[in-house]
Amino acid sequence: MRVDLRLNAIVDPGRAGGCELAELARRCAEGGATLVQLRDKQSETRAMVEQARAIKKALAPFGVPFVVNDRVDVALAAGADGVHIGPDDMAVEDARRLLGPGALIGLSVKNLSEAEAAPIALIDYVGSGGVYATLSKAQKNPPIGPEGLARIVDVLHRRAQKRGKELPVCGIAGIDAGNAAPVIAAGADGVAVISALSLASDPAAAARALRQVVDAMLAKRGT
Amino acid sequence: MRVDLRLNAIVDPGRAGGCELAELARRCAEGGATLVQLRDKQSETRAMVEQARAIKKALAPFGVPFVVNDRVDVALAAGADGVHIGPDDMAVEDARRLLGPGALIGLSVKNLSEAEAAPIALIDYVGSGGVYATLSKAQKNPPIGPEGLARIVDVLHRRAQKRGKELPVCGIAGIDAGNAAPVIAAGADGVAVISALSLASDPAAAARALRQVVDAMLAKRGT
Repeated sequence: MRVDLRLNAIVDPGRAGGCELAELARRCAEGGATLVQLRDKQSETRAMVEQARAIKKALAPFGVPFVVNDRVDVALAAGADGVHIGPDDMAVEDARRLLGPGALIGLSVKNLSEAEAAPIALIDYVGSGGVYATLSKAQKNPPIGPEGLARIVDVLHRRAQKRGKELPVCGIAGIDAGNAAPVIAAGADGVAVISALSLASDPAAAARALRQVVDAMLAKRGT
Repeated sequence: MRVDLRLNAIVDPGRAGGCELAELARRCAEGGATLVQLRDKQSETRAMVEQARAIKKALAPFGVPFVVNDRVDVALAAGADGVHIGPDDMAVEDARRLLGPGALIGLSVKNLSEAEAAPIALIDYVGSGGVYATLSKAQKNPPIGPEGLARIVDVLHRRAQKRGKELPVCGIAGIDAGNAAPVIAAGADGVAVISALSLASDPAAAARALRQVVDAMLAKRGT
């Protein structure tokens, strides 16, 4: 599935500033988020399924696709569009087998060797980083910066092109409207954002500001 | 699916006494376990899937069915026979929809109102308790004892019979060879055991001892 990765909003109950997640997702979509991911490392399965259903319902009017981090069971139960797979999650091969060819599968890619090894044929997009320092997640490795991201994006885009496939890549970690431009200049197709939306007093306005930067840089790049 | 519930061995990485889970499962099956459940509330998804695959492989020579606690995704990825569903897990209706009619679905039932509400048509077996005090799990409610279990089993068996269905029920919590007899005398079709197998120096021998008590009591009851 071709996914618009310009603004990938990640909603996380541990980083939502007390905001109800479905309402947060709705506001992000209202402001221009093009993909929403639920990342929940703490809730019980039943609560996660209910949460995912509420987010799916909130996003329906916007036609914005919705993926669940890690949990194929939750994605299937709630009828989400797919999953985002990290290094400790189910293997992409298994997720694709369980979700079918029509599902959206995103993969985290942290370095060049992961970019070389990524199962291009089985995935629809990549989230790559950490680009900048972030407090949203414990970072095992130092930020790769826009320079590191550029090298990873290059490998992924070249590998995808060889297969005649488009593989959008978004940068992730510590990105906001103030530092998003170098991420797109590095070749990324968009940005993944948690705090800059979740903790904004007006998430829709924050999404709009991010989209302006991303869209302007993409236009400049001529894509 | 008709399941033999005489000895439901639950293997849990947090309660395995350092034993490798697939080997523990193999020993339990060798000693007479009739159903094995993987209960893992701590591992990442990828590790859980690998663990489940190893257990499935270890059990294959014995023909002992294998279910995964809570995680429909892990059960599907590893090709387990089904899942065991607790109160915080996915709704039984969702699990049945995702796993299909041939999968084994067990449900935890803690009291009479849950027994009255259980979706009999969608489940294959019930685990009911806590019968005795246990250290394997934080117990929110006082143990129901064999008397409390008898009332729950009675409700479940009667409701199942009305539908012309067999619904085996096992008692759970704090059960070992020394106190299993009253559980079967209470009407249960078997016992679910963690520590009495996992922490035994010889899990196969412990399983054999439990099966002797359970089988003798079932014979006495004439089932």
